[in-house]
Amino acid sequence: MRLVTYQDSTGRHVGALQGDAVVALDGVAADMLTLIDQGAAGLAAAAAVLASHAPAQPLAAVTLLAPIPRPRQNVICVGMNYVAHAIESDRARGREPKLPAVPVFFTKAVTTVVGPDVDFVLDPAVTRELDYEAELAFVIGRRGKNIRRNQALDYVFGYTVANDISARDLQGNHQQFFKGKSLDGSCPLGPCIVTADEIPDPGALTIRLTLNGELRQHSSTGDLIFDIPTLIEYLSLGMTLEAGTIVATGTPSGVGLGYTPPRFVQPGDIIVTAIDQIGELRTRVVGV
Amino acid sequence: MRLVTYQDSTGRHVGALQGDAVVALDGVAADMLTLIDQGAAGLAAAAAVLASHAPAQPLAAVTLLAPIPRPRQNVICVGMNYVAHAIESDRARGREPKLPAVPVFFTKAVTTVVGPDVDFVLDPAVTRELDYEAELAFVIGRRGKNIRRNQALDYVFGYTVANDISARDLQGNHQQFFKGKSLDGSCPLGPCIVTADEIPDPGALTIRLTLNGELRQHSSTGDLIFDIPTLIEYLSLGMTLEAGTIVATGTPSGVGLGYTPPRFVQPGDIIVTAIDQIGELRTRVVGV
Repeated sequence: MRLVTYQDSTGRHVGALQGDAVVALDGVAADMLTLIDQGAAGLAAAAAVLASHAPAQPLAAVTLLAPIPRPRQNVICVGMNYVAHAIESDRARGREPKLPAVPVFFTKAVTTVVGPDVDFVLDPAVTRELDYEAELAFVIGRRGKNIRRNQALDYVFGYTVANDISARDLQGNHQQFFKGKSLDGSCPLGPCIVTADEIPDPGALTIRLTLNGELRQHSSTGDLIFDIPTLIEYLSLGMTLEAGTIVATGTPSGVGLGYTPPRFVQPGDIIVTAIDQIGELRTRVVGV
Repeated sequence: MRLVTYQDSTGRHVGALQGDAVVALDGVAADMLTLIDQGAAGLAAAAAVLASHAPAQPLAAVTLLAPIPRPRQNVICVGMNYVAHAIESDRARGREPKLPAVPVFFTKAVTTVVGPDVDFVLDPAVTRELDYEAELAFVIGRRGKNIRRNQALDYVFGYTVANDISARDLQGNHQQFFKGKSLDGSCPLGPCIVTADEIPDPGALTIRLTLNGELRQHSSTGDLIFDIPTLIEYLSLGMTLEAGTIVATGTPSGVGLGYTPPRFVQPGDIIVTAIDQIGELRTRVVGV
């Protein structure tokens, strides 16, 4: 299933996509986190609604929000998880290129999450070095701790697309990444969560990002240094992962920082972040 | 006021301390975040309950929980915010001591938060280098963005004590601090939130940490490199701070990592983290 959170004239709903239409799942759950908490029973109930030929609205008549508009905790991210990006990042910051021996985890504030078609307001008093990062994100489906990698995919509810918008000046100046990664609206997410059953191999998805139509990032999630099972094993060591936790898996090469000279994002730019089998985010950058 | 969250035989409540007793504020708010959201009106209502000679329970009859048992987002922390600690940390990691030019922000997962008298379970399969960090934490009282330092204290609801328990091996290996700072139970918090009106100068509080009775950390919040107004100005730049956000302001020197050789925490240790005018946390470390 392709699950969404959307707004229409009657309020906010969780729904499932059927082609270019959306079927409300109001009878199953009031919001996506509640649906995730219901586990297999929730998914079965949602599938039954779809099978019942329930009424559908055209997608054009609703506004898609982030599938989880307000996460229960910060979005967990992975840095330097594609070889070519790790090298471009180190070079851009004048460091000897070096691949991480274990995953580099950081977070984005809950206030960063926005929907798949929301403008980003670029304030030059905040950052002069705004950048994009196309990423596959996964959503945890059930609580776990000390999860072994060979069982890790059992803990994944589904997959979505994230753009880990980054203020490179803040990211560098503040040493730890949190501040430069946490500007309001800097985590476009969606357009849907594709449930795990529909993506048996999350390590074989094509990921692309265009800026004003120019292809800037183009890779496969098969190029991840630490694949999703490995990330879950490291992350859950001594640390409970709760249902609904969002983890963005890192970005491939081609970020603005990696160019010489860097090519940062400007007002008027349109960023499209796309992953095959899931969908795309369209983020327009506007001035204050 | 000294506000607490506590559990008794009837459930979980928010309350206010009166000496060694606690007065329930059930009629004002169901939980601390709701009370904070009510702003000045909530505090006035709480004060009215106290003034009405409402019935009080002895503290010994209840269990204090973290004042905010489940934050709405990760606990935001500041690294290297006392000169002597910044120097001891750099030296311990073989780096040239260097003070940060701007605050170093990172986060602890929401699942780290526990009450003022909860055991920490130390699993040697997770970390061999467990450490403590006594910290003054503040709680944001109302939403703000791009807050100027001269108005920043208007946004503070109150103050509490945190122990930023850290797994130094994970913190170093994973490069970014999040993983080593986010083990389950690694953020003892409390015992109360002292409202801002009772602490007109948060830059003049004595902070102490003992391990098995031995004084390990002893400083004043006057030694912060970046004081609370400055932290709020940096943090809120381009990033909305919501009511209920918890920010731990950094730890003074004396952490286990700073000794030669390092003196990490072991099962059986008792860590007491105390700040004058607020209270203390007592964390017993136990084996698996």
